[in-house]
Amino acid sequence: MSDPRLDLQFHRDVSLSPAQIWEGPTNLSMLMKWFCPRPWSVVECEIDLRPDGIFRTVMQSPEGEKVPDNTWCFLGIEPQRRLVWTNGFGSGFKPKPQHTDESLGFVFVADLRLLPLKGGGTAYTANVMHQSEANKQAHEDMGFQHGRGAALDQLFELMQ
Amino acid sequence: MSDPRLDLQFHRDVSLSPAQIWEGPTNLSMLMKWFCPRPWSVVECEIDLRPDGIFRTVMQSPEGEKVPDNTWCFLGIEPQRRLVWTNGFGSGFKPKPQHTDESLGFVFVADLRLLPLKGGGTAYTANVMHQSEANKQAHEDMGFQHGRGAALDQLFELMQ
Repeated sequence: MSDPRLDLQFHRDVSLSPAQIWEGPTNLSMLMKWFCPRPWSVVECEIDLRPDGIFRTVMQSPEGEKVPDNTWCFLGIEPQRRLVWTNGFGSGFKPKPQHTDESLGFVFVADLRLLPLKGGGTAYTANVMHQSEANKQAHEDMGFQHGRGAALDQLFELMQ
Repeated sequence: MSDPRLDLQFHRDVSLSPAQIWEGPTNLSMLMKWFCPRPWSVVECEIDLRPDGIFRTVMQSPEGEKVPDNTWCFLGIEPQRRLVWTNGFGSGFKPKPQHTDESLGFVFVADLRLLPLKGGGTAYTANVMHQSEANKQAHEDMGFQHGRGAALDQLFELMQ
């Protein structure tokens, strides 16, 4: 289902259970502690966990610089199995204005799947889909692989 | 919740029940008979009724001209209450390429709500959201209000 031309995929088998991992992006106080790779941090967060609900984070650099628009919309919610969201919509599936200059931003849909492993643990797969190869590349150049890995390490620490 | 700057809204109180109306866009053989205002017709259709499922119609003019890309994606499904879909995604919430030339097309999210009326019948409201005023205007100029009204008349006929 993943399209290597347009999708970035992050996969790891982890020793946490699907229930533990599910807490990570769906529990407000939990999310703020791991979602953003250090030294950046999540300083504000809103989670309205239903399809069409808002998923908003404000990320901040150690110098106090904030990423302005991280208001996303949940698309799919299957507890402990699948969480999907996009930055292309705001609350209520409301489509956001299109960037005329692609360098200012790009649309993605993040599809996180959790599969219980035999003998415990979870296969964690995040498939992040884009509209173009250029957008995928831009996301990759932002350090997607490293960022997701570092964040997952933080979640792991938190759960120990 | 509707934004008159970006949304087109079609509303009508009808004597059909929410259950009857729900059949209209969710039952394959039913949909082909009313969804497209005559003399155009739906000649092919696919309905995978789940969030992330495909909603595909091929519309054809009396002269045989076909509208090429009507592959949409369901976003929200609440039987007999709410149906949401977008042309911005294909199956699996996969975002479609962005049109660089806006005149070639625009993204919309259609949010159909059915509310049972006291004494029978249904308040039928379709709120169709766009990324820009220009896109909304283009959709309006395609005959949105007239088209939705004519289609709903066809559904009404069918259900009598």
